[in-house]
Amino acid sequence: MGPDWAAVFGVADADDLFEHFQAERYRGREYRYLPDGRHGVERGTVILGDAVVRGFPSIPRVLVLDPGVPEYFDGPVAVEEKLDGYNVRVADVDAGDWAELGPLAFTRSGHVCRYTSETVRERYPLADFFDDHSDLQVCGELVGPENPYTAHDYGEVDSVAFRVFDLRDRETGDPLPVAERRALCEEYGLEQVRSFGTYDPAGAVAAVGDAIDELDERGREGVVLASADGERRLKYTTSAIHRSDLEHAFALPFDYGREFLFSRVIREVFQAVERDEDAEAVRERARALGESILLPAVETVRAVERGDPVGDEHVVRGDPEVLDHLFAQFRDQGLELDVRDDRREGDERVVEFVKLASATRDKTEYYLDGGTIDE
Amino acid sequence: MGPDWAAVFGVADADDLFEHFQAERYRGREYRYLPDGRHGVERGTVILGDAVVRGFPSIPRVLVLDPGVPEYFDGPVAVEEKLDGYNVRVADVDAGDWAELGPLAFTRSGHVCRYTSETVRERYPLADFFDDHSDLQVCGELVGPENPYTAHDYGEVDSVAFRVFDLRDRETGDPLPVAERRALCEEYGLEQVRSFGTYDPAGAVAAVGDAIDELDERGREGVVLASADGERRLKYTTSAIHRSDLEHAFALPFDYGREFLFSRVIREVFQAVERDEDAEAVRERARALGESILLPAVETVRAVERGDPVGDEHVVRGDPEVLDHLFAQFRDQGLELDVRDDRREGDERVVEFVKLASATRDKTEYYLDGGTIDE
Repeated sequence: MGPDWAAVFGVADADDLFEHFQAERYRGREYRYLPDGRHGVERGTVILGDAVVRGFPSIPRVLVLDPGVPEYFDGPVAVEEKLDGYNVRVADVDAGDWAELGPLAFTRSGHVCRYTSETVRERYPLADFFDDHSDLQVCGELVGPENPYTAHDYGEVDSVAFRVFDLRDRETGDPLPVAERRALCEEYGLEQVRSFGTYDPAGAVAAVGDAIDELDERGREGVVLASADGERRLKYTTSAIHRSDLEHAFALPFDYGREFLFSRVIREVFQAVERDEDAEAVRERARALGESILLPAVETVRAVERGDPVGDEHVVRGDPEVLDHLFAQFRDQGLELDVRDDRREGDERVVEFVKLASATRDKTEYYLDGGTIDE
Repeated sequence: MGPDWAAVFGVADADDLFEHFQAERYRGREYRYLPDGRHGVERGTVILGDAVVRGFPSIPRVLVLDPGVPEYFDGPVAVEEKLDGYNVRVADVDAGDWAELGPLAFTRSGHVCRYTSETVRERYPLADFFDDHSDLQVCGELVGPENPYTAHDYGEVDSVAFRVFDLRDRETGDPLPVAERRALCEEYGLEQVRSFGTYDPAGAVAAVGDAIDELDERGREGVVLASADGERRLKYTTSAIHRSDLEHAFALPFDYGREFLFSRVIREVFQAVERDEDAEAVRERARALGESILLPAVETVRAVERGDPVGDEHVVRGDPEVLDHLFAQFRDQGLELDVRDDRREGDERVVEFVKLASATRDKTEYYLDGGTIDE
């Protein structure tokens, strides 16, 4: 007899929830994942045999720190850095023939990722941790220049790094209190995101302001605030990452431009107002915003005009067999790749490639050829 | 027996088309209008008794003049100015009890507008024209600072003006050839949009380039190109109007921002590329773009913070009774108005008012109060 799924997920009717799960395969084994949050169950929740790995919850954002932070928290607030990479959950699933695979890494949307699984297993002392805490999942950001999904550079990371920002119950998704989580990571040698300290809600406003100043200066993303028990979270980001998001989005305007544009503009607007910037400072912010939108787009249209391929550039390094699987996965997803370099460095294979942006290429060519538009 | 509607509209099944019409009343009479284009029948098409007033077709836009213009036209191309006001069709409907009302003005979406009807009747020699050409509709732009719908200033217009850009068969929507239309307007003293001349398709590229330079310099909108028979049209606009659209949209970001933003950015991108601008010119364009987005939005958020009303500012001048109806119409539409001034000047009433932008006010207050957002 299987688990009582309704009880596991805290829903009245498990069948109703299960309708929204989709099936996927990993190394010959079938698993199910939830592509969109439903009935209080997070997007990216995965079921492998009888085991559940809960999705990572979406963290609300505040546009104005004061009164945003004191309104949201009524006790101590831990301030930690938010990194710009991709969200990974690692769990040691002991159900059926999944157990023999060891710890697995799950993407935000709930896919088992072989590349990420091998990368974090090889580089981090996860086995020791899971020997003692198999009931937990390790949630962190995979960052650095040599990964196949994101491209933000961190000076301190040569290739890739995994930084823990949460330990949660694998099945219920309940987080550990912040202090306990940080101590446990320390104990097992799991590298974690930087802490800016813990403050009362009013003090957190100033602390976040200072942290954001420093992070903005260094081109980094922002912070996540958490209540001591880890239950309540809030995020706030730098102007630098708003511009960097826009630069990335408008380098491929017809793939990413529309979805990114309005939200980043609005974040900039409220940040300028909260910082009480004078006319000159707002003008500077406005000009930098305009440059982050128009310049990459003009460059891309010119590249298409010259016939150059356009897309997201990545470098990935790893075990040759693991990379074979990664590129097979990209092919299965219908991604078109332009491989710029593919070499061996010792035991590792290093591939520089571009994920071709077909919407941007095709629409740009259409307009350059004199195509019309109804608007 | 009524008209053969299927034949009138050139559709297989008139009932199927009529399902999409909506009913509306004007001075005690019911009419029907088509809120969205269907089965080749234009949005804004109106049926009043047995009479039809066809909607004004949407004009495609080109982002790159060369090869856009030569690809689209294979004969002479008339270049005329496109004005920034609101699109109005005037028709003398002779069906049933509509006949006694005289010429009526229809908005783009197909509403009879009493204010516009009275305004154009009072100021323009339409009666003479319709005595001889009751089969035609007069299509033009209502522009100028004193109108209740749009706010673009034209130095040459003190209050409001109506500029004809088309004469079309009222029932079929077929346009008159450009030369014939211009001659007829001239003959009846109907003021029309400026002509920049007629060119072969290759020559039109350069002519439009020059016209756009001049119009951009003067802060005006752009041009419409037409084949000699008036059937094929194309529009192209200035950087000045892209920025001005964004300034207007981002003065009320949560009412208009999202829908305007991406399209204007894309127009700027392709214009910069076609003009082969150097790095400095693209940077200047980018900065101006950023300023047109961020500065009005920051100003509006600050106004909301101070508790000032925010919205679209208008002045309207006219017969007191007509303005009573206009404001009654706004009330019926659920618009909230802030009347700043309401005075008599001779026989005329002049009202300065703001159409309050509730989405911008409410969302801005929510975020200023520390409200969170999921993105």
